[in-house]
Amino acid sequence: MAASRKLRYGMVGGGPGAFIGEVHRMAAALDGTMELVAGAFSSSAERSREQGRALHLDPTRVYGTFEEMAEAESEREDGIDFVSIVTPNHVHFGAAKAFIERGIHVICDKPMTNTLEEAEELCRLVQKHDVVFALTHNYTGYPMVRQAREMVSAGELGTIRKIVVEYPQGWLSELIEASGHKQASWRTDPARAGVSSAMGDIGSHAENLARYITGLEMEELHADLSTLVPGRQLEDDGNILVHYKGGARGILYASQISVGEENNLRIRVYGTKASLEWKQEHPNWLHLRFPDAPEQIFKRGNPYLGSAAAHTTRLPSGHPEAFLEAFANIYKLAGRVIMARIDGTEADPRDLDFPTVQDGAIGVHFIHTAVESSRRRAWVNADYSPPS
Amino acid sequence: MAASRKLRYGMVGGGPGAFIGEVHRMAAALDGTMELVAGAFSSSAERSREQGRALHLDPTRVYGTFEEMAEAESEREDGIDFVSIVTPNHVHFGAAKAFIERGIHVICDKPMTNTLEEAEELCRLVQKHDVVFALTHNYTGYPMVRQAREMVSAGELGTIRKIVVEYPQGWLSELIEASGHKQASWRTDPARAGVSSAMGDIGSHAENLARYITGLEMEELHADLSTLVPGRQLEDDGNILVHYKGGARGILYASQISVGEENNLRIRVYGTKASLEWKQEHPNWLHLRFPDAPEQIFKRGNPYLGSAAAHTTRLPSGHPEAFLEAFANIYKLAGRVIMARIDGTEADPRDLDFPTVQDGAIGVHFIHTAVESSRRRAWVNADYSPPS
Amino acid sequence: MAASRKLRYGMVGGGPGAFIGEVHRMAAALDGTMELVAGAFSSSAERSREQGRALHLDPTRVYGTFEEMAEAESEREDGIDFVSIVTPNHVHFGAAKAFIERGIHVICDKPMTNTLEEAEELCRLVQKHDVVFALTHNYTGYPMVRQAREMVSAGELGTIRKIVVEYPQGWLSELIEASGHKQASWRTDPARAGVSSAMGDIGSHAENLARYITGLEMEELHADLSTLVPGRQLEDDGNILVHYKGGARGILYASQISVGEENNLRIRVYGTKASLEWKQEHPNWLHLRFPDAPEQIFKRGNPYLGSAAAHTTRLPSGHPEAFLEAFANIYKLAGRVIMARIDGTEADPRDLDFPTVQDGAIGVHFIHTAVESSRRRAWVNADYSPPS
Amino acid sequence: MAASRKLRYGMVGGGPGAFIGEVHRMAAALDGTMELVAGAFSSSAERSREQGRALHLDPTRVYGTFEEMAEAESEREDGIDFVSIVTPNHVHFGAAKAFIERGIHVICDKPMTNTLEEAEELCRLVQKHDVVFALTHNYTGYPMVRQAREMVSAGELGTIRKIVVEYPQGWLSELIEASGHKQASWRTDPARAGVSSAMGDIGSHAENLARYITGLEMEELHADLSTLVPGRQLEDDGNILVHYKGGARGILYASQISVGEENNLRIRVYGTKASLEWKQEHPNWLHLRFPDAPEQIFKRGNPYLGSAAAHTTRLPSGHPEAFLEAFANIYKLAGRVIMARIDGTEADPRDLDFPTVQDGAIGVHFIHTAVESSRRRAWVNADYSPPS
Repeated sequence: MAASRKLRYGMVGGGPGAFIGEVHRMAAALDGTMELVAGAFSSSAERSREQGRALHLDPTRVYGTFEEMAEAESEREDGIDFVSIVTPNHVHFGAAKAFIERGIHVICDKPMTNTLEEAEELCRLVQKHDVVFALTHNYTGYPMVRQAREMVSAGELGTIRKIVVEYPQGWLSELIEASGHKQASWRTDPARAGVSSAMGDIGSHAENLARYITGLEMEELHADLSTLVPGRQLEDDGNILVHYKGGARGILYASQISVGEENNLRIRVYGTKASLEWKQEHPNWLHLRFPDAPEQIFKRGNPYLGSAAAHTTRLPSGHPEAFLEAFANIYKLAGRVIMARIDGTEADPRDLDFPTVQDGAIGVHFIHTAVESSRRRAWVNADYSPPS
Repeated sequence: MAASRKLRYGMVGGGPGAFIGEVHRMAAALDGTMELVAGAFSSSAERSREQGRALHLDPTRVYGTFEEMAEAESEREDGIDFVSIVTPNHVHFGAAKAFIERGIHVICDKPMTNTLEEAEELCRLVQKHDVVFALTHNYTGYPMVRQAREMVSAGELGTIRKIVVEYPQGWLSELIEASGHKQASWRTDPARAGVSSAMGDIGSHAENLARYITGLEMEELHADLSTLVPGRQLEDDGNILVHYKGGARGILYASQISVGEENNLRIRVYGTKASLEWKQEHPNWLHLRFPDAPEQIFKRGNPYLGSAAAHTTRLPSGHPEAFLEAFANIYKLAGRVIMARIDGTEADPRDLDFPTVQDGAIGVHFIHTAVESSRRRAWVNADYSPPS
Repeated sequence: MAASRKLRYGMVGGGPGAFIGEVHRMAAALDGTMELVAGAFSSSAERSREQGRALHLDPTRVYGTFEEMAEAESEREDGIDFVSIVTPNHVHFGAAKAFIERGIHVICDKPMTNTLEEAEELCRLVQKHDVVFALTHNYTGYPMVRQAREMVSAGELGTIRKIVVEYPQGWLSELIEASGHKQASWRTDPARAGVSSAMGDIGSHAENLARYITGLEMEELHADLSTLVPGRQLEDDGNILVHYKGGARGILYASQISVGEENNLRIRVYGTKASLEWKQEHPNWLHLRFPDAPEQIFKRGNPYLGSAAAHTTRLPSGHPEAFLEAFANIYKLAGRVIMARIDGTEADPRDLDFPTVQDGAIGVHFIHTAVESSRRRAWVNADYSPPS
Repeated sequence: MAASRKLRYGMVGGGPGAFIGEVHRMAAALDGTMELVAGAFSSSAERSREQGRALHLDPTRVYGTFEEMAEAESEREDGIDFVSIVTPNHVHFGAAKAFIERGIHVICDKPMTNTLEEAEELCRLVQKHDVVFALTHNYTGYPMVRQAREMVSAGELGTIRKIVVEYPQGWLSELIEASGHKQASWRTDPARAGVSSAMGDIGSHAENLARYITGLEMEELHADLSTLVPGRQLEDDGNILVHYKGGARGILYASQISVGEENNLRIRVYGTKASLEWKQEHPNWLHLRFPDAPEQIFKRGNPYLGSAAAHTTRLPSGHPEAFLEAFANIYKLAGRVIMARIDGTEADPRDLDFPTVQDGAIGVHFIHTAVESSRRRAWVNADYSPPS
């Protein structure tokens, strides 16, 4: 049952100063079950080597490009078991393809790709090469999000009637890309971020979170995307009305110009029997509300929670877990599934619950549908099934 | 400066068991400046008399119909100074007209009328007969709402970019009108409530609150109104995207099927310099957020607040005020303006800040525009100016 | 069942600018069941007359002293049914005595008297003259406090093991009495406030609240009272350890120098089966916590609450009630009991639940015991039974 | 500036199923700067080996006793740089001594020792052998606690007048040690936990936190320790009044029988100019309150915070950090100081801010003083300086 050894992984992206690369490394390190042994950290070979030194890596395993890394590592006896892709969006597809085709498992940041064609191609490649592919929709890694999903799935809310999911941030309320802010520069640049900024970067998390918790699929949507900061190339605020299959109504919004908001992802789900609310900034609590009984606050780490939450919890109640622990859960679960393949054992079914390449394709489709609806000022069909 | 006597008022509606009539009476009583002396409390003369007795009124001033009351009271030397209209919506117009035409001032519940024609007719009647007319959009009576308005008006938020105003309730999540629930019966009945339930009853408060705080007017809107409880005649959930004049974006929603929500009116306003949030269920606090400074919580009753809040505050900080005190502020301000007319003095300009007959017409226009947009599944022009 | 008429009351104290007099008048007015008809509002006859005019009283019923008022009103056919005493503490005893001895019911502010001898004398006078006497420990008027009491009484918390009750304020963190602040001047003056400031003014509320909710009586206490603002005559901060009869432990503290605190009365009660928490500044919610189940938030106005809360609730859930409504509940309940006496009917048992003259004596005893313990730096016996 | 290699560490305690050992390992792993290479995980050699296998350690470096480990590792060229001691309290002293005397640095759990003699002996040993010694008062690792300390130190609160620090838990509200609960068994056993349970385990954190933030030292204290669960050997609830040097007053309490509380460490500090509040269960926010300005919420990760918070922050604002990240900060800082010694460089002064062996001795003295005061029912001198 215990793993026979630690997993070995490499990283594409995550050079000096890159926020998300550091997050992935901390997430991977937390449980002591995997170690970083290789990397192509930057499009600059010099910066890649610098990062390798800072991380105490063997210099021969620090590469100038992901292609070199894919080739060299796939030929080593002790090559990496999986790769972690943490670059700007436009690099995801090529990098993922290079490793998948060599049978190396992938953990990839989101949104998965910039075009739907690429997303669907990845679905087919994952299928063909039979690799594990996990997408870091990290908010699904929170134990109380898993509790929410389990309760909805068990019917404790009744039939879902309404979903309100919102993701306001304020960090792009000025044109900071004009003065060289690194994150802002690529996230608002169509060449690197794709067709959308707010919806691509954070609206896609909101879409994924709502679908993860409720299981509901969109039927049609009406989007209103706006660029509120003059001079910006992509939208920085987007508000969407949703009709879900089966009749539920929804509001989904993402904003990068909501001054004073930090990372305020929040979801409310209303059913015929009960409703729930979860807030990413206070992630250890899940609120349940009823027509005829006191509100209940479910708190992470307690024995009254279900197995999905318990399986992703590290600390007792009252000892708060947060963003990194949730992120680490994606690594932990995907890592266990990869390890089971290596050890030739059966994966624990609970470990299979992480975002997949199909989730990635659905997210990319959602982004493009929102852009189209807003352009046409009309309801647009949002029904979609990715290649399985 | 002090009033020469107490005001005398009568009430139309508010018979035994009527929630909102009792609210109006408590609001009017709180400051000891006005007394209830007459009433036509019910369409049943017997129930009207019953209510009169319970309130210790002179039986000769308890009437069977509002027409009788308007006629009799307008001829008395000590007749009522103003009337309070607290009936279901469809009665508002006729009752208001009857008193206005006799020069009696009016405080009227909302939404003001069921049709735009009636609303505009009231605007003209108020103008013609030169009476004071106050509409009980009571949420504008909260001191911290007034503080919010004052801060926006002073430019402390910069240019407004986005408004999110929401009003979820859960009390109509079952078809309770089918089993005779009195409130539910008339509020979901087109003959009495008009073209809308959720938007009419509470969406109109959300519209008024957003406009009161920001001063922004709608340019166009896209509404998605739904009836989620089978068998119901009017919509019980409505979600609206808004374009405001000047470019701000908005989300406005009202729901009566959001199980577990009580009366959760909440508004967030995002400007270029700061944002604010206010929640009706915790009304003594106003949150201000900034791009580069700690969040601030402004608390009712403190000397650092502006004059609008101070003018409507009764208790020191930490001694919470709530719904009734806010409601009473509408009565207090309108009452003072009425008293100034009686005493032949100049009204304090701060007392003039209560919802008017024009606010009522704008609200009625908004409701009808939302219904039309939802029917057409399209953006609809929402620009409107009522007769002044 | 309905009252035959409105009650008539007079007021001692509450002259121009007096905060607490205005609170009492609003509380009395709220339900429309009693009217203010007489007053001795100030030790200055001129200021008393000024207040009478502002309140539109009959000038012949505005008196220079409470003795005149007691004598004149007791001889009128339409004299006052009860008196409301809202002066500084040192006047309470004399005023209460004057009215009680004439058979006039009393609603009196707290702490009841400055000495235990006076407190016990009032107990005997109330008994002898068979009048209704209510003490405005207004925080017991909150519906959710009543819910808390009902749940403890029903055993839902099991055996109580610990009580933490705290009442921090910050308004006396400077020596404002030195610059003529009216409230501060008398509350820190031994001649008017008695032996204590923080414990007398607010610690007595904390003592009363804990006893009201739990029914527990003190066995011994250890107090640490301090004067933290140099130049002040009475203590402005007090922290007390308590042993309750039966073995429960307690912490009770009151502070007037806790900068930034407004009126933050809060209580937590821990039992063997559950615990509760209630905060005066967010009074509509009551938190219940369990060893093995989610936290529950009981919210005012819901059908799942008990009859004690329901009996003191005016508004539906989500329409917050606050300080004045709770204060008004003391008036409402005492007023109904007085009215039942006048009408010769039986009082509703639920109406008898307001603070009595015995509660007042216990409070005075508590204050003096705390002062003694602090002086002696030792545990002191706190067991006490007032004359019944 | 960058470290020349990863640190190597060993662990004493932390066998299969031990909560705190797992916490230390995750904390050490998070930043990727140190690796676990050796261990004496259990008093059972078999269980120690089991743990070593699960952690993929070299079996030759998994030891049966800490003495063996100290001896063997001190003789290896690639021996451990430091040891992490995570056993029950009674083992701390012997284990720490064994490693210190061999010049191996120590990170040790708290309370440091069971007797003051042992604590002082450790102070002398650390001095004599010139090793780095860090005590895991992990709550001081929270960035917002460091912000609090920095603000107090900069005089932003003025002179401190009052501290209220509380640490309620509910997990020992039943006699679970009687049915073999592992944690409960040793924590309530005088032979292993020492003279105190509640004060030793969590009261010591409260003491440390208050001292860390304010810098104030105790002058005298009056404690009331109780055993509220029948059959328990040590106290499970303790309430203490404190006089700090310089005149500030304090309340410090710790409880293990506060049903429904999880790990609710909370501190409020009141100064002449401002007050602050911090809650461990919502650790990313720090509340500042003022006499004459809105409350401010300082939020982790923002540029307006000081350097102490910034130095211990890993994620941007709105991406919450929590317990493990705070715990990891103690490891990170102590690890850097150790690494600087190895590399022969100067330690960054900001890295020196972690709890020391002297803090441990002060904590042990505090525990014993509280026990003595409670036994004597009297104020007891609490002034103490450990050997430096």
